[in-house]
Amino acid sequence: MREIAILGIGQTPISEHWEKSLRAIAGEAVLAALADAGRERADGPALPRGGASRSAVEGLFVGNMLSGLLNRQENLGALIADWVGLRGTEAVKVEAACGSGAAAVRAALMAVASGAMDCAVAVGVEKMTETVGPQTTAALATAADADWEAAQGLSFVAINALVMRRYLHEYKWKHTDFAPFSINAHANAVHNPYARLHDAITAADYNRARMVADPINLLDASPIGDGAAAVVLVPADSIPRHGRPVVTIAGSASATDSIAVHDRRDPLWLSAAAESAKKAYAQAGVGPADIDVFELHDAFSIMAALSLEACGFAERGQGPRLGLEGQIHPTGRVPIATRGGLKARGHPVGATGAYQIVEVAQQLRGEAGATQVPGAKIGMAQNIGGSGATIVTHILKAN
Amino acid sequence: MREIAILGIGQTPISEHWEKSLRAIAGEAVLAALADAGRERADGPALPRGGASRSAVEGLFVGNMLSGLLNRQENLGALIADWVGLRGTEAVKVEAACGSGAAAVRAALMAVASGAMDCAVAVGVEKMTETVGPQTTAALATAADADWEAAQGLSFVAINALVMRRYLHEYKWKHTDFAPFSINAHANAVHNPYARLHDAITAADYNRARMVADPINLLDASPIGDGAAAVVLVPADSIPRHGRPVVTIAGSASATDSIAVHDRRDPLWLSAAAESAKKAYAQAGVGPADIDVFELHDAFSIMAALSLEACGFAERGQGPRLGLEGQIHPTGRVPIATRGGLKARGHPVGATGAYQIVEVAQQLRGEAGATQVPGAKIGMAQNIGGSGATIVTHILKAN
Repeated sequence: MREIAILGIGQTPISEHWEKSLRAIAGEAVLAALADAGRERADGPALPRGGASRSAVEGLFVGNMLSGLLNRQENLGALIADWVGLRGTEAVKVEAACGSGAAAVRAALMAVASGAMDCAVAVGVEKMTETVGPQTTAALATAADADWEAAQGLSFVAINALVMRRYLHEYKWKHTDFAPFSINAHANAVHNPYARLHDAITAADYNRARMVADPINLLDASPIGDGAAAVVLVPADSIPRHGRPVVTIAGSASATDSIAVHDRRDPLWLSAAAESAKKAYAQAGVGPADIDVFELHDAFSIMAALSLEACGFAERGQGPRLGLEGQIHPTGRVPIATRGGLKARGHPVGATGAYQIVEVAQQLRGEAGATQVPGAKIGMAQNIGGSGATIVTHILKAN
Repeated sequence: MREIAILGIGQTPISEHWEKSLRAIAGEAVLAALADAGRERADGPALPRGGASRSAVEGLFVGNMLSGLLNRQENLGALIADWVGLRGTEAVKVEAACGSGAAAVRAALMAVASGAMDCAVAVGVEKMTETVGPQTTAALATAADADWEAAQGLSFVAINALVMRRYLHEYKWKHTDFAPFSINAHANAVHNPYARLHDAITAADYNRARMVADPINLLDASPIGDGAAAVVLVPADSIPRHGRPVVTIAGSASATDSIAVHDRRDPLWLSAAAESAKKAYAQAGVGPADIDVFELHDAFSIMAALSLEACGFAERGQGPRLGLEGQIHPTGRVPIATRGGLKARGHPVGATGAYQIVEVAQQLRGEAGATQVPGAKIGMAQNIGGSGATIVTHILKAN
């Protein structure tokens, strides 16, 4: 498989974009990524928005989960391609629940790696706060098992609450031990202009936050939002090596688990995270100790702990320890949620995986500002669809 | 790009499968395709259902349009992978409206071609007749432009009716001139045990069918249904050449157009069909005259005419002539809808493109029974998402 690089990155602020259509939100991220790709070129200044580099795009891969239910719109590939001036270009939507964003990046990666095309754009997009369909909570439950979870009245947060309750029981943690995950995410988001929330929180805030689904309170849970993030992928050998670092995709893997949590041998072990990370580590020739920054899928604080364990950063049942020991900050041993994570950057579900990859690329380029991880050379992004059912892991390297 | 072959094919009958879940319908097609792939092996008889060959599968690509709206279920990759015994395996859903089935096959093709995996299964599935969401007509309108078509009250059939009315006006055809498309499709479906409809029709039946959206009557329109079709893809050089012909994918391409028909320079020209066919012809080194069988997207009879024109089988505005001259039957010059087409085999929307590819493979293997195209060596399948917005064209060859 030929080596693929991320030539351009783009994102929109995550917010309530009632004034913008789904296609406009996605399109803005695509055009920003194309403009950024233009800045990579040897011959000088930034190209106009999308300008010259748009003609090189041969495929558009749209990560999205809920457009049918919430926006009454499918066929997003053609819709968005046209809006950005790529009418005619191959385009398709990729769906893997909240893992759709990274799944779209992986589809674009395989398209370029196959030789079918030399330049692909992947964009994750979701418009959730102004919708025409069922309540967002009902829509999000389609990530779970419709027949055996949602039909029993379980919302998505309720499923995660059952997992967290079990975890607290099994490994003897207190709820407040999870506070560092949320505190770190909020602290980092203050410095990210694209983040949904810009308010730092304290342990006291965390402990008194109102309950959503016991034991998950409001500060354990990520906020939904409207937003889009995009990357431009090309063969690595097509990029002139000068100026800012070239970010390559050194590892990319996806794995699944049962869609219903109760079907698993151990509901506290993300086997698809372990499996996809193992494959990505092998492809990249690295291990957890080599990862300088890890954008993980902290949709709920319990998921941050489980991801750290499954990917080899903590022993089983010991995920919260990393936070309590102060190792998850940008200058810690295992920096996570460095741009705010799902918790505070926000979680526009089908877009999240693309945001994570854009943020890791920012870190590897040294463009992460106040939350820059010093000397970051290797980063990992892990996107989860459902309660651990579909997990996509990418490892990026600065070259 | 390495050459890819279709090692196995499988399908379920298209019907009202109220007794089966979405996952079971998809799973049955996957297991049938795996069993068929097993029969390909040099060392003897058929493997048990899915049996030994299942362990070789490294990716599952699910083509589906409406599971979120109609079945309140997303995350289909993990859902179906688990049902068929592939828990853990990479899996994802691909959506391109009614073109989802072929888009999933193309995604699987690129995954294997990239070298990321050596065996992928693509399955198209839709469960439409027993649903929990909005009316099917409202759900299908999500293939169109939600803001500029559906929001104006245009159903999907209404959009096609406007196109057909314009075509009748522009090129001076009578409605009855489209009858041969439906008569041929129904006649062929009688011999296809998987088809939704098994009743032959006459020109008189066609002319007196009740109106759906003037000028589209009931016999211009394809029936929805529940069903799934699947293919197993592997590198062509991994298949021992003996026994039945090896079917390879010689061409695969996808293109888009504006999602709204009124945005096009010529609403009577399927530019994405022309573009994707042109690319596929070039890849396969063939032209329209070399195509022995063409499974086209006759969701409405007008689309059959437009597809024939865009792909070079008829002059612009002359699509109906092929039918009137008796050239579209299995023994004609341009055999189409040989297993019933969307019109009579049925149109479970996200599954249709996979059915078409399975049917072309049947023809190239000589397994099409009473509607076998004599000596078929090269076949084409073309799947359309929306009213021409996303079009995926595949060319298969018997080797």
